[in-house]
Amino acid sequence: MNKSRLEAFSDGLFAVVITIMVLEMDAPVGTSFTSLKPLLPIFLSYLLSFVYGAVFWVNHHHLLAATRRINASVLWANLNFLFWLSLIPFFTSWVDENHAASIPVAAYGIALFMVVASYRLLETVLFRAHNADALIVRILRPGRREKITMIAFITAAVLAFAHPYIAMTIYIIFAGVWVMPARALEKALTDKDICEIE
Amino acid sequence: MNKSRLEAFSDGLFAVVITIMVLEMDAPVGTSFTSLKPLLPIFLSYLLSFVYGAVFWVNHHHLLAATRRINASVLWANLNFLFWLSLIPFFTSWVDENHAASIPVAAYGIALFMVVASYRLLETVLFRAHNADALIVRILRPGRREKITMIAFITAAVLAFAHPYIAMTIYIIFAGVWVMPARALEKALTDKDICEIE
Amino acid sequence: MNKSRLEAFSDGLFAVVITIMVLEMDAPVGTSFTSLKPLLPIFLSYLLSFVYGAVFWVNHHHLLAATRRINASVLWANLNFLFWLSLIPFFTSWVDENHAASIPVAAYGIALFMVVASYRLLETVLFRAHNADALIVRILRPGRREKITMIAFITAAVLAFAHPYIAMTIYIIFAGVWVMPARALEKALTDKDICEIE
Amino acid sequence: MNKSRLEAFSDGLFAVVITIMVLEMDAPVGTSFTSLKPLLPIFLSYLLSFVYGAVFWVNHHHLLAATRRINASVLWANLNFLFWLSLIPFFTSWVDENHAASIPVAAYGIALFMVVASYRLLETVLFRAHNADALIVRILRPGRREKITMIAFITAAVLAFAHPYIAMTIYIIFAGVWVMPARALEKALTDKDICEIE
Repeated sequence: MNKSRLEAFSDGLFAVVITIMVLEMDAPVGTSFTSLKPLLPIFLSYLLSFVYGAVFWVNHHHLLAATRRINASVLWANLNFLFWLSLIPFFTSWVDENHAASIPVAAYGIALFMVVASYRLLETVLFRAHNADALIVRILRPGRREKITMIAFITAAVLAFAHPYIAMTIYIIFAGVWVMPARALEKALTDKDICEIE
Repeated sequence: MNKSRLEAFSDGLFAVVITIMVLEMDAPVGTSFTSLKPLLPIFLSYLLSFVYGAVFWVNHHHLLAATRRINASVLWANLNFLFWLSLIPFFTSWVDENHAASIPVAAYGIALFMVVASYRLLETVLFRAHNADALIVRILRPGRREKITMIAFITAAVLAFAHPYIAMTIYIIFAGVWVMPARALEKALTDKDICEIE
Repeated sequence: MNKSRLEAFSDGLFAVVITIMVLEMDAPVGTSFTSLKPLLPIFLSYLLSFVYGAVFWVNHHHLLAATRRINASVLWANLNFLFWLSLIPFFTSWVDENHAASIPVAAYGIALFMVVASYRLLETVLFRAHNADALIVRILRPGRREKITMIAFITAAVLAFAHPYIAMTIYIIFAGVWVMPARALEKALTDKDICEIE
Repeated sequence: MNKSRLEAFSDGLFAVVITIMVLEMDAPVGTSFTSLKPLLPIFLSYLLSFVYGAVFWVNHHHLLAATRRINASVLWANLNFLFWLSLIPFFTSWVDENHAASIPVAAYGIALFMVVASYRLLETVLFRAHNADALIVRILRPGRREKITMIAFITAAVLAFAHPYIAMTIYIIFAGVWVMPARALEKALTDKDICEIE
């Protein structure tokens, strides 16, 4: 029972989720630059969806690169994570089509919260499948970043009712926080990489 | 002739089948939580499709993890299974759009029956490709779960004409029965996993 | 330069091409079995597309299983083959929506001819990348099946102007001819399989 | 941290991007060859998108075949490249639906420029991840083809305002320039291939 198929299936789902929004971008009527303007919200929507999809793909990639053992619980925790991730394009476009109205922005925050929470659950289930001295357990134990992000997203969802644009700013900032995977993990994997290949 | 490509192709099909219904979830008009309400049936439809897709992916994953040999018959038995699986989103949305009317619910049961029957056929063809002492043959021989599920789905399809909601309950219960792959298989694979990696 | 990525990319394209037509099957309005009737042509269309996609996937799988070396020409011959294959769902649905009218049926035959011709070209390019004593060259040299099929499809395309249903019958018969990959190849791969794994 | 998953995820995105435009090709109303005529622009659009997608896939394939080490920066440079590539079908169909009007043709040139620029960035990031004596660094260092292509695309985008058809001709010529991956890379990979497998 190796992890290659878990990765391949996740990659298939990531690829579909990330590109769903291109399917909605039809060529505009008209040939001036102005005719591109009504497409701007859907383009920004695609960009934000792509960035969140990419952010979680990179983190997922590093997490599984450090994984040595999987079981049926890991498969299900991963499927749970992918389910919540697949809802992001839907909520992103709801926000954009309504010019960041309060309730869509709040709903977006809750959806992002569920993605991070299910990612945290996947980490927990992966830890349990390993011994205490495995690479993944030694390095990733605290999971502090996930907790801070979850609190930030819930706070932003509440804030959205008063100031939707502040909530949106929080979502964008925390996408930035996740751009680089856990530094300790990156370092450990790169060192190992040197040992194994060179 | 190894199995990696059989798995990769199946994963591609699983990924498309599982996410087809997200494509149908367009952002609602309106910014209140009420405006999400008309999307509820399509959301539940997506959830149920995702769960059935996930359930069969996890079982398919374990089945092929125990596989050592494939041939052209295995490829075709797998394609036959994927064909029936690809019809599930269609029948799920027919049920949901008609508030669980009798005939769509019965048709859904028949479709689920075909998925399980074609999965059973795939197991049979895989057994024939192995020797009698192969891991997969020793552990999976009885295939009792498939038979019980097939009888349950046919019974539910008939029941649907009188009580569609009882039929739906049976479908949901049997999704639960398949959440964990065959226990003996999980155990055998995990033991092997320990030997090979640690 | 190994072949795993050539296979993975082809599998992604096969998966999308095969499932494109499910996307067009929307749940019918109405809850009787009669309301499924207008969907019958699109269902048959999906079935035929799935079968042709599956037939070429199985043959492509065996061909590449016997491949030991690839180069840029192989990549391009493979892309050319996938391009023609991706047009099949379009021509299938044109036939079905017009109840097998002469010109759509003839166009379908030409499209199938191009798929087989590009598959033949892929075989030729693969042979050239190998030495004369390589498994793939020793076993597949004649390529007689491809020639007969190409002549049959062109004949059927001409026949379609007089008797479209005879042409359709020829298309279905030749799908059957390709269901099993070249027998010599299957045998050689299975023998090798035994040596390598057991 | 190996590269197989980077390749698999890229292949999934390539497959979706390349086939997006088939989804837009609906079977025409009518059964004469004339009824195919209104589909000609969308068919040419699909062909051009397919060719550009294929061209970059082949080059990406060779680039990663020569890669030995990856890190998080490589993952992000690759995602950036895939983002720009995913916009090509959109700009291609804008050009075709407006019979090569000036502004869509210019926008198309800018989009192609971004694809090549992000591909160049991916090469640069890959070089930095390797030692100076790695295969990929020794062979690909100059990157002259990328620079010439970028200048050509920007020139064509400006030219488009006066002569859109000359600009289109430049785009098609430079697709041809990229059909074969860097010759030195092809040669090096093929030699290595001989050593490793035969």
